[in-house]
Amino acid sequence: MDNSELIKLIKLWLHEAGRKIRKVQEKTLTIDQKKDRKDLVTNVDREIQAFLIRHIHAYNPESKILAEEEGYSELDDFTGQVFVVDPIDGTLNFVLEQENFCIMLGVYENGVGQLGFIYDVMTETLYWGGKKLGVYKNDQLLPRPQNQKLEDGLIGVNGYLFSYNRWNIRTIGEKSMGVRIYGCAGIELIALIKGKHVGYIANLSPWDYGAGNVLLEELGLKYSGLSGEKLKFHGREYYLAATPQAYEEIRILIDTTPN
Amino acid sequence: MDNSELIKLIKLWLHEAGRKIRKVQEKTLTIDQKKDRKDLVTNVDREIQAFLIRHIHAYNPESKILAEEEGYSELDDFTGQVFVVDPIDGTLNFVLEQENFCIMLGVYENGVGQLGFIYDVMTETLYWGGKKLGVYKNDQLLPRPQNQKLEDGLIGVNGYLFSYNRWNIRTIGEKSMGVRIYGCAGIELIALIKGKHVGYIANLSPWDYGAGNVLLEELGLKYSGLSGEKLKFHGREYYLAATPQAYEEIRILIDTTPN
Repeated sequence: MDNSELIKLIKLWLHEAGRKIRKVQEKTLTIDQKKDRKDLVTNVDREIQAFLIRHIHAYNPESKILAEEEGYSELDDFTGQVFVVDPIDGTLNFVLEQENFCIMLGVYENGVGQLGFIYDVMTETLYWGGKKLGVYKNDQLLPRPQNQKLEDGLIGVNGYLFSYNRWNIRTIGEKSMGVRIYGCAGIELIALIKGKHVGYIANLSPWDYGAGNVLLEELGLKYSGLSGEKLKFHGREYYLAATPQAYEEIRILIDTTPN
Repeated sequence: MDNSELIKLIKLWLHEAGRKIRKVQEKTLTIDQKKDRKDLVTNVDREIQAFLIRHIHAYNPESKILAEEEGYSELDDFTGQVFVVDPIDGTLNFVLEQENFCIMLGVYENGVGQLGFIYDVMTETLYWGGKKLGVYKNDQLLPRPQNQKLEDGLIGVNGYLFSYNRWNIRTIGEKSMGVRIYGCAGIELIALIKGKHVGYIANLSPWDYGAGNVLLEELGLKYSGLSGEKLKFHGREYYLAATPQAYEEIRILIDTTPN
């Protein structure tokens, strides 16, 4: 299927959504109160999701949507065209750092990933690509990351899993060159895509990995649940992505006995 | 003392050093072997340090230097003018991420911080300032960060202290909005300086905090050893920096009984 028209449209939507967020962002700088900040995040999240859904449905009224905000967070039927949307990934970074957050959008056909978009809003950098299309940073084709070993690279981790050594993940971090915690799945996945990190282990919802998985797959990187199982695209689940070598090493080290 | 001439010089040195590093950086992209990468880092570290020391001594042959690479890593006498230099802070990021590393330079007079410079090499952003001069991001004066509480902000941590709950630091992380691990003291201190994070706890050498402390002090932020003690500027030591409110909260939560 030729997706070139859809790709052009999605880029337009994301750039427009980014402009909206950066505009609102200026307001957050003057907000002191936690409650006001929380309201702001919720409002922006909803506004951006509604904006994207409006455009998706104008493009294809038949398409289904799986997205973070209310009414769209569960989907049982993945036949046909499905858009997986995270309007703001890394909401804490959005409100507290005013950077290091993303918009993510994945397009699936009958459950198979076709297109993925991760937009780093503040640096205005779009990572995108798809099945047999390659992966791009804006207009620049990215090379396949080197197939590095765990011991030769950095790994992104979830702070809870790491600090409590759940499923042996602290030990896995210690076997790497070092752990990183960025607080945003999109930013962590970008590090993998660019070959800066060898792995990422976290607790994610479908809209946190829907776009990224398409890009990882196209680049020859691996992903699954912690026991190697297929991701459920339903509710939060533990998530592992890595270079093929690091993936095998991590899978052996992960202790999936209940703890 | 009027430091305006020295400030101009240091900016020139840092920008020139940054250009050198970015030029070498292009080579790292083609280096596969760990040993070669390690050699590269060591060579660049030494070359940049030698470059800075050459310029410092041309400016003031009497000045003393405390710096990471060999022959300069200890200093007992802090009388007169002392330069505290880290040629590449975040060497793992330098070689593995090709971003998120800094050059840092602090100027002290009889043990009192006068000027501080943290240069984010790949984004070409210079954070600098000094006693009664304010703190700047390139040419833009930065506001004082809000005096936020621990529970209202993000905190940068050292992965080991956090994951083993040494000195109760995991618990401290859990009382914050979230922990971040960037793998570079300079990048963590920039987050504090910009008011994006409320605290930073790590295990550092003098050249990791020499420049940053000058900027923190000018912005009304606090720093010390974990028990509130003055930093020794000698060998590695545990380090805490935070907003005044978060600093008090963290100090109460830190458990300094041996563990």
